[in-house]
Amino acid sequence: MIQRMRRTVSDLHAELVRYDLVAWTAGNVSGRIPGEDLFVIKPSGVSYDELGPENMVLCDLDGNLVEGDHSPSSDTAAHAYVYRNMPEVGGVVHTHSTYASAWAARGEAVPCVLTAMADEFGGEIPVGPFALIGDDSIGQGIVETLKGHRSPAVLMRNHGVFTIGKDPRAAVKAAVMCEDVARTVHVARQLGEPLTIAQDDIDRLYDRYQNVYGQRSPR
Amino acid sequence: MIQRMRRTVSDLHAELVRYDLVAWTAGNVSGRIPGEDLFVIKPSGVSYDELGPENMVLCDLDGNLVEGDHSPSSDTAAHAYVYRNMPEVGGVVHTHSTYASAWAARGEAVPCVLTAMADEFGGEIPVGPFALIGDDSIGQGIVETLKGHRSPAVLMRNHGVFTIGKDPRAAVKAAVMCEDVARTVHVARQLGEPLTIAQDDIDRLYDRYQNVYGQRSPR
Amino acid sequence: MIQRMRRTVSDLHAELVRYDLVAWTAGNVSGRIPGEDLFVIKPSGVSYDELGPENMVLCDLDGNLVEGDHSPSSDTAAHAYVYRNMPEVGGVVHTHSTYASAWAARGEAVPCVLTAMADEFGGEIPVGPFALIGDDSIGQGIVETLKGHRSPAVLMRNHGVFTIGKDPRAAVKAAVMCEDVARTVHVARQLGEPLTIAQDDIDRLYDRYQNVYGQRSPR
Amino acid sequence: MIQRMRRTVSDLHAELVRYDLVAWTAGNVSGRIPGEDLFVIKPSGVSYDELGPENMVLCDLDGNLVEGDHSPSSDTAAHAYVYRNMPEVGGVVHTHSTYASAWAARGEAVPCVLTAMADEFGGEIPVGPFALIGDDSIGQGIVETLKGHRSPAVLMRNHGVFTIGKDPRAAVKAAVMCEDVARTVHVARQLGEPLTIAQDDIDRLYDRYQNVYGQRSPR
Repeated sequence: MIQRMRRTVSDLHAELVRYDLVAWTAGNVSGRIPGEDLFVIKPSGVSYDELGPENMVLCDLDGNLVEGDHSPSSDTAAHAYVYRNMPEVGGVVHTHSTYASAWAARGEAVPCVLTAMADEFGGEIPVGPFALIGDDSIGQGIVETLKGHRSPAVLMRNHGVFTIGKDPRAAVKAAVMCEDVARTVHVARQLGEPLTIAQDDIDRLYDRYQNVYGQRSPR
Repeated sequence: MIQRMRRTVSDLHAELVRYDLVAWTAGNVSGRIPGEDLFVIKPSGVSYDELGPENMVLCDLDGNLVEGDHSPSSDTAAHAYVYRNMPEVGGVVHTHSTYASAWAARGEAVPCVLTAMADEFGGEIPVGPFALIGDDSIGQGIVETLKGHRSPAVLMRNHGVFTIGKDPRAAVKAAVMCEDVARTVHVARQLGEPLTIAQDDIDRLYDRYQNVYGQRSPR
Repeated sequence: MIQRMRRTVSDLHAELVRYDLVAWTAGNVSGRIPGEDLFVIKPSGVSYDELGPENMVLCDLDGNLVEGDHSPSSDTAAHAYVYRNMPEVGGVVHTHSTYASAWAARGEAVPCVLTAMADEFGGEIPVGPFALIGDDSIGQGIVETLKGHRSPAVLMRNHGVFTIGKDPRAAVKAAVMCEDVARTVHVARQLGEPLTIAQDDIDRLYDRYQNVYGQRSPR
Repeated sequence: MIQRMRRTVSDLHAELVRYDLVAWTAGNVSGRIPGEDLFVIKPSGVSYDELGPENMVLCDLDGNLVEGDHSPSSDTAAHAYVYRNMPEVGGVVHTHSTYASAWAARGEAVPCVLTAMADEFGGEIPVGPFALIGDDSIGQGIVETLKGHRSPAVLMRNHGVFTIGKDPRAAVKAAVMCEDVARTVHVARQLGEPLTIAQDDIDRLYDRYQNVYGQRSPR
C-alpha cells in the first residue's frame, strides 16, 4: 500500500511538469495512505527529473518524517494540517502556477464564468489569507477557506494554490483545471467583462458533473 | 471502415494535445462512419495518454452506445445532434481552448482581421447561445449558428468551441486554426484596434482558399 | 547541390515548429540554389510531420514547378518575386507567428527598444502593405519594404511575417528572432511605455553584431 | 575539475531551453573553476543542440580564451568582470527571457509581491543601467547593482537578465525563477494592483529560505 502510494505520488509530479504548473522544484503532491495516519510527499529541493518512488518521503499527520532518506517538502506542515483536519481528503497539491498565483497576488477570487468552472469548482475559486511558512498558519488558512466550500482549490494570498481531492490524482486534476480556468478568465477579462452564469445554472452543472460524469466518478 | 475510423479519431486527439487545446480530459473528437448512421467518439473521462482505437466508442445518431466498453464522452449528445442535422458534416471537435473560450466568456465574436481567418473561416467566428449539457440544447445552438455560416467554428457562450468538417481531420484543423486566430486577434487588440479587411477582400480570400489551396482540397 | 538544399529546407521547417511559429501547415521556408535560377520550397498543405527532402518542390524564379510530385506552397509567388528582385537573398521564410502577426493586424511597426533588436534588425521591424495572394502583390510589398532597409523581416498588414537571409538558415533565424522581440516588446508595452534606445547606440550595436558576432558571421 | 565544469556548464544550457528562456543562441551560462582564475563559458553563435563538453570554452578572468576551438560567447567580458569583482560568485547566466526583458525594457524593477520572490530574491528584482557591449560597461552595471543586494538577478535596461550564484546551477535556478516571478507579477498587474507584502514578512521569508530550505542549501 505504502509502496504503491510512493509510485503514485512520484508519477503525479510529472503531470505538474507536463501542464507547466511548476518551475524548478516549486510544487508538490502528497497522498494519504488509506486507513493509516500517514502520507507520502515529495522530498524538499529535489528536481522533478530525479523523483522516483524510492526518494518519496513518508510522514505522520504531524508532518514528522517516518521513513525516507530525504527531508520532506518544506510545505509538509501545510499538507499535514489538511490531512489532520479534513478526513475526507486523500490528496493535496501545491503549486505557484502563473495565472492562479496572479489572482492570488491581487487577493482576488476567480469568478465562475465558464461552464467548466461550474463543473469542477461549483462556483468561484476562493482566496485564502496571507500566511507565513513555518507553523500551521498556511494549513489553517487552507482548511478555513475550503471547509464547506465546493471548490477543491484555494488561492493563498501573495503565494500560490493548494488543491485537495479524494486521492492525489483528483487533487492534481484540480490543480490543472484551476490554472486552466484562472488563465481563461484572466484572458477574457483583459478585453472586457465576461458574461455571468446564473447561480441556478452553476448549481445544475455542478450537480451533474459530480454525479454523472466519467466512467466511474473520476474525482 | 469502423476500425479505421476508430484509429483516425483516436490519433487525432494527439493533435489537440500537441496544440495545447485541452487540459486533462476536457476535449473530444468524433468522426462519422461514411454511409452509416454511426459515429466514433472519445470515451468519457479517459486521459489522452490512454486513448487507443480499442477504447473509442461507437454510437448511433441519437448518441446511444452501439459498441464499446466505456461510456461515450459527456458531449456525445451535442455531436449526435450535429450529425443528425448536418448531413454534410463528417467530423466534430469540442475544446475549451484558452483564447477561443475567453471570447466565448465575453460572448464576443472574433472579428476577421487576418487573412488566415478570411481563408479558413470566411469572416468572423460567431458566438452561439448559452446552453446547458444534458439534452439537445448545445447541439441546437451549434447547428443554428453554423447552418448557412461560412465558419466551421462556433464559440458557445461561457463554454468553449465546437468545430465541424467534412471529416474529423478537417474539424481538428478548424479547432487548431480557431485557437490560433482567436489568440492573435486577442493579442492585437490588447494594444489597440486591428485594421479591418474589406468584405470584398475577405470574399476573394475565402473563395480562393476553399477552391485552390492544398494538394487536393485538404478541408 | 539541389539534393542538399532539399534536405536543408526540409529540416529547417522543424525550427518553425520548435519555436511555435506555425499552426497546422501555415508557414514555409525556401532556399535558393546558389548560382542557379531555382529555389526549393515546401509543398502546399502538407503537414510538418510528413515533410522530407523527397517531397520538397523545386521551382524556377517565376514560381513554376520544375521538379516535385506536389504542388508548391501557395506562397510560392511571393518567394519567387523576392528571389527575382533581391539577388543577395538566398532564403525566405513566411509565418503567421502570433505576436508579429498581432503587430501586423494593427499595421504597427515593432519599435526598437531592445538591444537584441538593434543587433538583429538594426532598428524597427517595418510594416508592409495589405496585399492579396494570387499575383505579385505580396512579393512587391515585401521587396518595396525591405529594399534598403536593415531589417530582414517585414510585417505584412493583416497577414503575417516574411523574412529574408543570405541563406534559408539566416531567414529562419530572423523569423525566430522577429517573433521573440515582437512578443517581448508587446509584453513591455502592456504595462507602460518602453524606454527608447538612442539612434547612435542602435547603430553601434547593429554594426558590431553584423561584423563581429559568432564563429564566422552566422547570418 | 575543468572537464567536469565543461560538462556541468554544457548540460545547464538545456535548462535554459527547457524553461523557454532563450531563442536561437541568445543566452549563456558560465562556471568558475573553483580555486583557479578561470571559467568555462558557451561558445559564440553555436546552437543549443550542438553544445557539448568538448566545445565549451575556457577563459581567464580577463575574458581571454585559454582553451577551446571556438570563440567564447560575445557576453564573455561581462561574465569575466563579475568573476573578477565578486569572488563569492561561482556561476553567471545571461538570458533575454521574455517577461524579465519586458520589465527591463521599461526600466522597471519587479516588485516583491509573491512569497516565492521573498524566498529567492529577498525583495524586488532591481534594474541595472543601459550599457553597450564591447567593454566593461555591462559587467560594471551588473556588479554595481548586485553588490550588497539580496537579489541574485539584475534586469539590465533595454537588454535582458544577468543572474549570479555560488555555482552555475544556482545561477540557472535564479534565471528560471526570475522569469517565473517576472511573468506572474506581470500577469497580476494586468488586471489591477497586486497586494504588498510587509517588509518584515519579506525578511522572515528570505531568512528562512536561505537557511532552512532544501536537503543541503541548494543555492
